[in-house]
Amino acid sequence: MNMNNNSNNNNSNSADMQSHCVEVHPVVPPPHRSSLQKLGAKLKETFFPDDPLRQFKGQPIKKKWILGAQYVFPILQWAPQYSLKLFKSDVVSGLTIASLAIPQGISYAKLANLPPIVGLYSSFVPPLVYAVFGSSRDLAVGPVSIASLILGSMLRQEVSPTKDPLLFLQLAFTSTFFAGFFQASLGFLRLGFLIDFLSKAILIGFMAGAAIIVSLQQLKSLLGITHFTPQMGLIPVLSSVFHNTKEWSWQTILMGFCFLVLLLLARHVSFKRPKLFWVSAGAPLASVILSTLIVFAFKAHHHGISVIGKLQEGLNPPSWNMLLFHGAHLGLVIKTGFVTGIISLTEGIAVGRTFAALKDYRVDGNKEMMAIGLMNMVGSATSCYVTTGAFSRSAVNHNAGAKTAVSNIVMSVTVMVTLLFLMPLFQYTPNLVLGAIIVTAVVGLIDIPAAFNIWKTDKFDFLVMLCAFLGVLFISVQEGLAIAVGISIFKILLQITRPRTVVLGSIPGSDIYRNVHHYKQAVGVPGFLILSIEAPINFANSMYLNERILRWIEEYEEEVDVKKHLSIQYVILDLSAVSTIDTTGVILIRDLRKAVEKKGIEASKTEKFSLSSQSSSCLVLVNPLGEVLEKLQRAEETRDFAKPENLYLTVGEAVASLSSSMKSQPPTMHDEEAQTNPRQN
Amino acid sequence: MNMNNNSNNNNSNSADMQSHCVEVHPVVPPPHRSSLQKLGAKLKETFFPDDPLRQFKGQPIKKKWILGAQYVFPILQWAPQYSLKLFKSDVVSGLTIASLAIPQGISYAKLANLPPIVGLYSSFVPPLVYAVFGSSRDLAVGPVSIASLILGSMLRQEVSPTKDPLLFLQLAFTSTFFAGFFQASLGFLRLGFLIDFLSKAILIGFMAGAAIIVSLQQLKSLLGITHFTPQMGLIPVLSSVFHNTKEWSWQTILMGFCFLVLLLLARHVSFKRPKLFWVSAGAPLASVILSTLIVFAFKAHHHGISVIGKLQEGLNPPSWNMLLFHGAHLGLVIKTGFVTGIISLTEGIAVGRTFAALKDYRVDGNKEMMAIGLMNMVGSATSCYVTTGAFSRSAVNHNAGAKTAVSNIVMSVTVMVTLLFLMPLFQYTPNLVLGAIIVTAVVGLIDIPAAFNIWKTDKFDFLVMLCAFLGVLFISVQEGLAIAVGISIFKILLQITRPRTVVLGSIPGSDIYRNVHHYKQAVGVPGFLILSIEAPINFANSMYLNERILRWIEEYEEEVDVKKHLSIQYVILDLSAVSTIDTTGVILIRDLRKAVEKKGIEASKTEKFSLSSQSSSCLVLVNPLGEVLEKLQRAEETRDFAKPENLYLTVGEAVASLSSSMKSQPPTMHDEEAQTNPRQN
Repeated sequence: MNMNNNSNNNNSNSADMQSHCVEVHPVVPPPHRSSLQKLGAKLKETFFPDDPLRQFKGQPIKKKWILGAQYVFPILQWAPQYSLKLFKSDVVSGLTIASLAIPQGISYAKLANLPPIVGLYSSFVPPLVYAVFGSSRDLAVGPVSIASLILGSMLRQEVSPTKDPLLFLQLAFTSTFFAGFFQASLGFLRLGFLIDFLSKAILIGFMAGAAIIVSLQQLKSLLGITHFTPQMGLIPVLSSVFHNTKEWSWQTILMGFCFLVLLLLARHVSFKRPKLFWVSAGAPLASVILSTLIVFAFKAHHHGISVIGKLQEGLNPPSWNMLLFHGAHLGLVIKTGFVTGIISLTEGIAVGRTFAALKDYRVDGNKEMMAIGLMNMVGSATSCYVTTGAFSRSAVNHNAGAKTAVSNIVMSVTVMVTLLFLMPLFQYTPNLVLGAIIVTAVVGLIDIPAAFNIWKTDKFDFLVMLCAFLGVLFISVQEGLAIAVGISIFKILLQITRPRTVVLGSIPGSDIYRNVHHYKQAVGVPGFLILSIEAPINFANSMYLNERILRWIEEYEEEVDVKKHLSIQYVILDLSAVSTIDTTGVILIRDLRKAVEKKGIEASKTEKFSLSSQSSSCLVLVNPLGEVLEKLQRAEETRDFAKPENLYLTVGEAVASLSSSMKSQPPTMHDEEAQTNPRQN
Repeated sequence: MNMNNNSNNNNSNSADMQSHCVEVHPVVPPPHRSSLQKLGAKLKETFFPDDPLRQFKGQPIKKKWILGAQYVFPILQWAPQYSLKLFKSDVVSGLTIASLAIPQGISYAKLANLPPIVGLYSSFVPPLVYAVFGSSRDLAVGPVSIASLILGSMLRQEVSPTKDPLLFLQLAFTSTFFAGFFQASLGFLRLGFLIDFLSKAILIGFMAGAAIIVSLQQLKSLLGITHFTPQMGLIPVLSSVFHNTKEWSWQTILMGFCFLVLLLLARHVSFKRPKLFWVSAGAPLASVILSTLIVFAFKAHHHGISVIGKLQEGLNPPSWNMLLFHGAHLGLVIKTGFVTGIISLTEGIAVGRTFAALKDYRVDGNKEMMAIGLMNMVGSATSCYVTTGAFSRSAVNHNAGAKTAVSNIVMSVTVMVTLLFLMPLFQYTPNLVLGAIIVTAVVGLIDIPAAFNIWKTDKFDFLVMLCAFLGVLFISVQEGLAIAVGISIFKILLQITRPRTVVLGSIPGSDIYRNVHHYKQAVGVPGFLILSIEAPINFANSMYLNERILRWIEEYEEEVDVKKHLSIQYVILDLSAVSTIDTTGVILIRDLRKAVEKKGIEASKTEKFSLSSQSSSCLVLVNPLGEVLEKLQRAEETRDFAKPENLYLTVGEAVASLSSSMKSQPPTMHDEEAQTNPRQN
């Protein structure tokens, strides 16, 4: 509190030059911390921004144990208070999502080129694991369309699912293991922020592209084509469709079209009236039952309508002996695991956060990642492939009134009953109805209003979205994603390489200084060039900032020649927005000071309008933040900036203080030129 | 100028709550510009920050032509005013650098595993090209050590220079062509800022590592080892040296040691007294002459001292027919061209800028790149390999009084004379003296004081430097560089992922608000949580900012419980340092507003200290910059922020205005708790 001596209420430090008594608040370095303390604080902020140990602080030892157990097993948080009322809600929602999960599980497994039953296996074990470790109350766990598509298409690059189905299955389980391993590691190493690099714009474009790719794949079953391309891109699929027109089966097309319209109508009804969620939730199972009955009744499988065929009864067989950690395909499997792991993690976390925000509880990202990762690692040992929280199914779960993860357990038990007793019923289920179910599910991933809103808000984000969309459509799912992430990062780097520098002017009747190109009423102060740098200064932008600031000075001097007003006495750099600086940035400040002083000397030699007694111009810094100030004062090149005459806390105080020292010199300019505007055109 | 109506001089908007008449300056959106105008401005700032067309503005048409010609051929800028006096200076400096260039040319060509004469060819044609197109007056052009080393070591990965010398030479010329092509393209596409990503810290570490690697390579000639490893790393070279001790030749070691000491002494003398620059400049040529005489006189080449051998006389033969744009090695050649091109460009530009700053003229980076690129493309067609402006030679040139690029022409002519008539004289020049010359030249690249200064200023930059250094020493030159660049970019991304958020407090007796953890006298305002975000908001940090800001709010509320003061009425976000925002950032602001409002409702239900009539708390934004404000008002989610009650120009005005509206409510708290400090511990 060393400031109390000058804390009188004389706030006269405004932009007008008349003030003689100028109050200046000193710039002080921040309280000293050792390098180790700073490193510790930085590491904590990087890896533990949520401060997970905070809740343990000041608790008795027993409470600490309970909190710790609850932290590892979120089920312990809600299980003790679980009631019959909650259970009723959970049973309803659990049965609802089961009716959706069974047909979707079969469909998505086919999308991944896996046996349909693997999709059901994957809807049995992972939800149970998640119920114990997961902290979201609304997430409905199971296979999802995009991860299934990527898994299938990436593995098919090296192994054919029809020629070598066992190896393909082994690779799928191993990829699932690696996906889970990467997911759990990201959470454990607290690197969860890496998935933030998949921005909303990227996801919207990616989802829309993937939805179209997935829908196109369904043309195989909806048109009844038998010789379909194994490729994913828009062009090979369409050419395959139109080169095989003689394979089209009118029975399949008719029936497929009817069910597709039915399902889309059901979806539309629920979309318009959220209360009728059960229409779209029950429609897939109803369609499966109806279509199976039709096929069975009319023996339609003898008339060109392909059916799922015989499915094995029984629960998940163990598959840990099928994991391949060596051999020629290890690289592919790791890559597939990484891509599907990241994609499904992104979907799961986003879904969890969305519903947590709706119900106002919080989902810990890193903990969720460990739960999803664990669930996939366990899954890979029990004949399951990649699973996560699915958006559409979680929405149904939420609308059906799910209260806790018990709805997942109910779903899991329902799937178990199906696996044990009901498998023969699916023998005559036509593939076309599975195709229709997938198309209906993924159509919801195309979010045109969101895309339009991005176009309105930020054109560059729209470009990124478009790249993701077109990349997925025309190149491949994973490359489209990589391109979009690359462009996003490039944009950030470009922003850093070309930070904005703006000229500040005084807003009349106040000591506020703002960008003169934004606030048209702001006017420059004669003799002062006030610049604000709006980004951290580092190696990537020092050279640019140097050139740009020298150009501002030159432009100011050219204007001086034209308008014949006072030449630059002080260049004020407002560093309020410069959060960090590095060694190259320190050198920039030194070089700028030298350049400004040199200009001043030249000006005083040649310039007739300059104040004769003012032999050189000065660089003055305003409000350097703690870290920046420390570095400037520690580096040899800029140690002079420890002097108070070069440092001010606000632009207003700097101008008031410096211009009062200018005023004490004999004036050599006319009063009508006192207030002028450095704004160009 | 719509502000004139309230520009009275009543500056009473200070932090004290007594003020009833609060003057508030409105936040207005920036003047409207179309998307196309914004795009144009952004592109101009990205690619033409130096505004190269500015000098053409308002000039008559003839003058424009002259300026245009001078822009393309900088030689036209100084040639018309060239005088005899300048020529005298240039002849002296030209002869000086020629005496350095001839032995260095031969040495560096050997470093690149090329015939020695290619080094001399490379000191003849490129300087002539540079003299016409280059804009630096001090750059001494020719082969340089690090680019030579990289070229030699990268090409040797696939082709042996001893077994297939013709192919090796062809690849070297082709790499040179690609190096020139990349350099010229960077300049032409105005992407010169990409070389800024090689920060000073990286270059210091890289140079030191490369100097050691280059020096170690010279142990071959300085010890007289014949079976030397073709690898570059520290460990293989040292093990090769100590496994071949029986090949060591004492005559070579003795003579090599003497010349090394002689050259280092000469360097030391010139270093201490810059006036004696000619000592170190002339020493290499003197050593070559002296050592050649000794070998010739004592027939030392019959006693274990290896010599250069017969060199062909005559000027550069054409080599455009040797460029290979197809075949198995094309990938390697393009990679080599890219790496050597970037490295030599970085050195050339840095040297040019350094001396331009000393003599106070400006070097246009993009133009320089085109000049250097053109010089290498021409060079590749005339039997030259990669050249650029060398640091040591340019320093000698500068010290010797070079005034214009004519010194390069003088050097070039001297080399031409050497090539035509003096080649037989080098027949008995021992290789050991070339090794000693290289070691002396590269020792100067190890800059320990600079490394120490980096350690003092910025520990992370030091780490980057160390990575570059150790990477070059133990992995490889190009990979060490890649690792260091990768870490630098990762650091920037990390800074963006974890931006600082700080709590602001009022500095007593002023309306200045600063970080309470930096300015210890700053105190919080009861009922207000004032936060400043110190980075652009984007997809990579929105999630973090959301969590971090909610934690600040929670911590404040916990303190409220303990100290029983006023709970949060307003959360003020100071966006002065937020230079840009994207769609994810817009959603962050929306989510924060919702969260703050929800907290307020909860608080008013449970909190006994809240003002009864204040039913919810509010999120208020302060000083959003032009682009941020536009996006916030354009996006659907945050359109409410167009309302003036949510937007203020300064924190002081926001606090004054909002607290005066709070004061009009019946007060329910004690006065002694009015001023409190939200600082933790």
